[in-house]
Amino acid sequence: MSMNSFGHLFRVTTWGESHGPALGATVDGCPPNVPVDEAMIQTWLDKRKPGQNKYTTQRQEPDQVEILSGVYQGKTTGTPVQLMIKNVDQRSKDYGDIAEKFRPGHADYTYHLKYGNRDPRGGGRSSARETAARVAAGGLARAAIDSVFGGIKIKGYMVQMGPHQITRENMDMAHIDQNPFWTPDAQAAKDWAVYLDELRKSGNSVGAIVEVVASGVPAGLGAPVYAKLDTDIATAMMSINAVKAVEIGAGMSAAMLTGEQNADEMIMGKNGPEFTSNHAGGILGGISTGQDIVCRFAVKPTSSILKTRRTITKAGEQTEIITKGRHDPCVGIRAVPVAEAMMACVILDHLLLHRGQIGINQGKIGE
Amino acid sequence: MSMNSFGHLFRVTTWGESHGPALGATVDGCPPNVPVDEAMIQTWLDKRKPGQNKYTTQRQEPDQVEILSGVYQGKTTGTPVQLMIKNVDQRSKDYGDIAEKFRPGHADYTYHLKYGNRDPRGGGRSSARETAARVAAGGLARAAIDSVFGGIKIKGYMVQMGPHQITRENMDMAHIDQNPFWTPDAQAAKDWAVYLDELRKSGNSVGAIVEVVASGVPAGLGAPVYAKLDTDIATAMMSINAVKAVEIGAGMSAAMLTGEQNADEMIMGKNGPEFTSNHAGGILGGISTGQDIVCRFAVKPTSSILKTRRTITKAGEQTEIITKGRHDPCVGIRAVPVAEAMMACVILDHLLLHRGQIGINQGKIGE
Amino acid sequence: MSMNSFGHLFRVTTWGESHGPALGATVDGCPPNVPVDEAMIQTWLDKRKPGQNKYTTQRQEPDQVEILSGVYQGKTTGTPVQLMIKNVDQRSKDYGDIAEKFRPGHADYTYHLKYGNRDPRGGGRSSARETAARVAAGGLARAAIDSVFGGIKIKGYMVQMGPHQITRENMDMAHIDQNPFWTPDAQAAKDWAVYLDELRKSGNSVGAIVEVVASGVPAGLGAPVYAKLDTDIATAMMSINAVKAVEIGAGMSAAMLTGEQNADEMIMGKNGPEFTSNHAGGILGGISTGQDIVCRFAVKPTSSILKTRRTITKAGEQTEIITKGRHDPCVGIRAVPVAEAMMACVILDHLLLHRGQIGINQGKIGE
Amino acid sequence: MSMNSFGHLFRVTTWGESHGPALGATVDGCPPNVPVDEAMIQTWLDKRKPGQNKYTTQRQEPDQVEILSGVYQGKTTGTPVQLMIKNVDQRSKDYGDIAEKFRPGHADYTYHLKYGNRDPRGGGRSSARETAARVAAGGLARAAIDSVFGGIKIKGYMVQMGPHQITRENMDMAHIDQNPFWTPDAQAAKDWAVYLDELRKSGNSVGAIVEVVASGVPAGLGAPVYAKLDTDIATAMMSINAVKAVEIGAGMSAAMLTGEQNADEMIMGKNGPEFTSNHAGGILGGISTGQDIVCRFAVKPTSSILKTRRTITKAGEQTEIITKGRHDPCVGIRAVPVAEAMMACVILDHLLLHRGQIGINQGKIGE
Repeated sequence: MSMNSFGHLFRVTTWGESHGPALGATVDGCPPNVPVDEAMIQTWLDKRKPGQNKYTTQRQEPDQVEILSGVYQGKTTGTPVQLMIKNVDQRSKDYGDIAEKFRPGHADYTYHLKYGNRDPRGGGRSSARETAARVAAGGLARAAIDSVFGGIKIKGYMVQMGPHQITRENMDMAHIDQNPFWTPDAQAAKDWAVYLDELRKSGNSVGAIVEVVASGVPAGLGAPVYAKLDTDIATAMMSINAVKAVEIGAGMSAAMLTGEQNADEMIMGKNGPEFTSNHAGGILGGISTGQDIVCRFAVKPTSSILKTRRTITKAGEQTEIITKGRHDPCVGIRAVPVAEAMMACVILDHLLLHRGQIGINQGKIGE
Repeated sequence: MSMNSFGHLFRVTTWGESHGPALGATVDGCPPNVPVDEAMIQTWLDKRKPGQNKYTTQRQEPDQVEILSGVYQGKTTGTPVQLMIKNVDQRSKDYGDIAEKFRPGHADYTYHLKYGNRDPRGGGRSSARETAARVAAGGLARAAIDSVFGGIKIKGYMVQMGPHQITRENMDMAHIDQNPFWTPDAQAAKDWAVYLDELRKSGNSVGAIVEVVASGVPAGLGAPVYAKLDTDIATAMMSINAVKAVEIGAGMSAAMLTGEQNADEMIMGKNGPEFTSNHAGGILGGISTGQDIVCRFAVKPTSSILKTRRTITKAGEQTEIITKGRHDPCVGIRAVPVAEAMMACVILDHLLLHRGQIGINQGKIGE
Repeated sequence: MSMNSFGHLFRVTTWGESHGPALGATVDGCPPNVPVDEAMIQTWLDKRKPGQNKYTTQRQEPDQVEILSGVYQGKTTGTPVQLMIKNVDQRSKDYGDIAEKFRPGHADYTYHLKYGNRDPRGGGRSSARETAARVAAGGLARAAIDSVFGGIKIKGYMVQMGPHQITRENMDMAHIDQNPFWTPDAQAAKDWAVYLDELRKSGNSVGAIVEVVASGVPAGLGAPVYAKLDTDIATAMMSINAVKAVEIGAGMSAAMLTGEQNADEMIMGKNGPEFTSNHAGGILGGISTGQDIVCRFAVKPTSSILKTRRTITKAGEQTEIITKGRHDPCVGIRAVPVAEAMMACVILDHLLLHRGQIGINQGKIGE
Repeated sequence: MSMNSFGHLFRVTTWGESHGPALGATVDGCPPNVPVDEAMIQTWLDKRKPGQNKYTTQRQEPDQVEILSGVYQGKTTGTPVQLMIKNVDQRSKDYGDIAEKFRPGHADYTYHLKYGNRDPRGGGRSSARETAARVAAGGLARAAIDSVFGGIKIKGYMVQMGPHQITRENMDMAHIDQNPFWTPDAQAAKDWAVYLDELRKSGNSVGAIVEVVASGVPAGLGAPVYAKLDTDIATAMMSINAVKAVEIGAGMSAAMLTGEQNADEMIMGKNGPEFTSNHAGGILGGISTGQDIVCRFAVKPTSSILKTRRTITKAGEQTEIITKGRHDPCVGIRAVPVAEAMMACVILDHLLLHRGQIGINQGKIGE
């Protein structure tokens, strides 16, 4: 019932606020004997780390992970893994104005109403800093997938910034790690740089769309309803702050397709069944088909901006607000490693669930 | 960990297949002393019932609900409510061909692989019939909301069929119940009738987009991460079969907005804080603002169509398939009452959760 | 979070009241392809069935189970199994006096306070009838254990009635099914018959101690804390109504042992490690050792008795009560098949959990 | 599904090993605005702290708690509270022999089999050190009970050491904190000191029985089955390592009572209903009556003893073992504050659950 947990068998509970001493993830249910150390997890955290270029918040956080439990002599023990990240650069002077005023589009207002005890120095649990804990947990999930099951690759990238989409024909997965936007379209990376620079200088921010693909996922993961693989992926992505929509495969566009167009035809290939298309995004009836799992989600623009907006105070008075401070002009950029991490957690969780209930797939083709 | 359950405190577990003797919902955690009877729940089931017009499957199912437990003398007892619906019209002869061939775009293939024991007469748990149980549970949730909390209205409607969107200016909520498509746009209803008739006659099907709005929801429901109100709504909608995408508020379009555009400004109204817009869909930082909760989702077209598609057999041979039988040309139509039901379950669940952890909102405005 | 569910991966939710139309168990997470039918489950229900002799309630209930879902062509499908048992003999006239008065030692009082909507004709969810649903679920669990894992035997029996214990030296497991008390001590069965007859005629009732042993359980099931195998067994047994205490292995007597006495020594046998004793009850550090799992629990005497007791009315007035009607003079007798069922559910659940997280044991002896 | 979590709405997940850098509790679902600080929680940890006298392990651990999240300006925020305790005195040289041999009666063997990756320096998660995290979480639970609900007192004490029971007539609650055994019987304290000294010097250990009482708990907490208040208390206590049995009220002795003896009669007192006895231990039908909640449990003797016992090695060879090192001669002593903590967690959890589902009691007496 936990309100800060995620997953069935591989269960992640994150804790910590943006301006407290530390944050982290308590990870329960990881298989034992998975080789993992802080350096392996740090690799993923370094991708999400703020302050790496002018397109992300200038807050300087080393985001150094410490493994406090659950790993002995470089291998998981099968008991809870505590992944802690200390907060270092909490520069609180930046947040003065927010104590009494609510930022429009921000959790300030609802957080205050519900809990009545809000740290005005930052977004508390609503801060994007919470996602560091997810990335750490995702690093562990990746290690477990590789060690116990193997053969699965998870890759996220940006496909749209504001109104500017990538050109699918330009996609080159090797390019993703070569630009600050994690986009596979080299030309888009150049265009977005100009676009975002201008926005940033004007004190504005913008939304984005991120796509995550998991390939090599075996058929059979998931369930027909409720514990559908796509439901759990949607849950995972929507649980990231600032996400407003999630799509699987054809997504919203599925509404525009006819049954004839949408039905991914099957042909019998040399190595087994193949599909001629993937509108399904690798999931049929909530269960993986063996095709690439394809998910997209929209991240809204950061609400902490230098533009003047009307708002109210805690005292109930009309006022205006400009949010100074260090913020991401396009928080979608840093959502890329977060999305990969969440996908890794979901896939591992369902690998374990499937093994628990079913063992191995019960039905065969051609036997 | 249940794979067929939904909700935290108001917890719904559905059971039953499309071609078994019955299906239903086991509902745990309902508050006691909620006035409810079979007739109240039947009202909602009748909206979803198949065979009501030529635009839905011709399967004749009365979908008569029986309350087997948890209600005494017209009021809930606070213990599990069992809502059972007998299957009546299982005409199995229609399904002959499907036993050995997989319908492209259908759960047949994955269901077979995972479980190895699939009832070829129907979709098993992947059938849209499963959603009858959701509607019954949703009817109970509505009764509990009205009785214990009050003031909340939940309304769903279709906003797009295939490529044809409604015109937002034409929206008249009173019109929703006046046409077979549950759409608030009278002109769209006429156009869609022509469009769908043609598709249906050609043996094809089409996708749709459904919107659900919950108004009167108090501020403070939800949590900053994981148990976000929007996460649980997304989970609820994505768990419905055939759903491929879920949006909250601006949804995928949030990607195209700047922070300035997206930030719903606040003004101090006579009766408290007001917002000048609702890009947030009534949820900020995972917690309700008091504005309308707005959700949309895409339903893919039915995969059981009269069009010839390439596929394979269980034996692994290449073949083709045409699916005869009774199917919905646009299953999105019947998704409308299902979506309302899921929204009702989520809202009630979060009302109970909030009351459990917080009691009443801890923060005030203007005090 | 369900308040009427049990288990992690093999998850049982029971529903239904003693005087409603039916009761049952919704079982989620059962492995697919387990051979099972109504007759197999009926075998276990028939052991628990009331009215079989003068030592149990004279209520006549056939307790006929109907499988409404999750089984196709004699095998589980891997989706929820609904096990329904209709109530037949609800003879409500017996319960007149209880509507306004609380039976001392009975749930009447607390049920009324909490829910405020109590069916005075019976104990609602607190009735021993609820345990029929457990026995049905346990029958399914046994079938799954046998089919998927094998080699495990679960046996329950009475070891004490009132002050009268069995003589451990007299134990003959073959005798258990030969007497109405499910006791392995033939002499005790004779003595108890005389003792209970007298009690029954005097309108009194008495408590009992039941022991359940699971043999053939592989080492490695459970976890060091919280999801300890002994914790889940204790939870299972204590969740049965009228149970007031649970013991594992030496149980309460462990308090009297020294470390030297309590430590079950290990010797290396031909077929692997052996233990010279089993104070641990087959569980060390929450994890099964491979020895017999041994559990005992105490059932309090039925509170519905013909003896006059002081009590109060709903109106708050002092009064007395004698409970007429059909009740078990020693409800512990019928707890035997219930306890076996709960043990089966726990063992299957942990077999699945272990397979999910660990696969197979990661550590070896002598390799 | 977490294997290291406890509770429904107030949910505690503990993490950390006896010889890692730290351990702690991640507590989710605590109500906001509860006044709490490290000093308040430290009070309870100091009661459990090892090395306080010659009757507990000589390991020197300050057990200093750090609150890493969920508290702002001395009040809970309603988001996860991370309670961390660093390990200080891990003196690993003491554990040399245990790396290759299994201590009889200890989790060594099962832990090794299941996980295959065991830190031989200590008991890992099976160590009594894990209970420090429980005590910290219990301290938070107490603060929340006091602040949000009030009027509840929880007290634990030892009632038996080895074969030596307290004399109930000698009980003086004021005496509990005046002796190293947390016993309310001054004479027993003296006798036990002599008894335990002798045992300790001989290198042996002994079991104990602890009793915990919660008074002032309102009627109505719990549920008729599964989420019974007594089930959750049993689960809580049995989840503590070394516990082998749990009793509620009359406990195992309930088996010996007749219905007439067991039924706690009710009389109408000045301030409402009263009971003439409390065999029920304050719980009827799984729901609190308003009487004292009474629970007892047995702790087995420490298995790490200086007595020679036969055992085997990891290599599968027969051998003997003597466990040197620092261990508790009667680990039951330090179980007292742990049991109080677990009771506090259960009571708070059920207060929140009851408020969530029911609000306030729905039934009244005399209205």
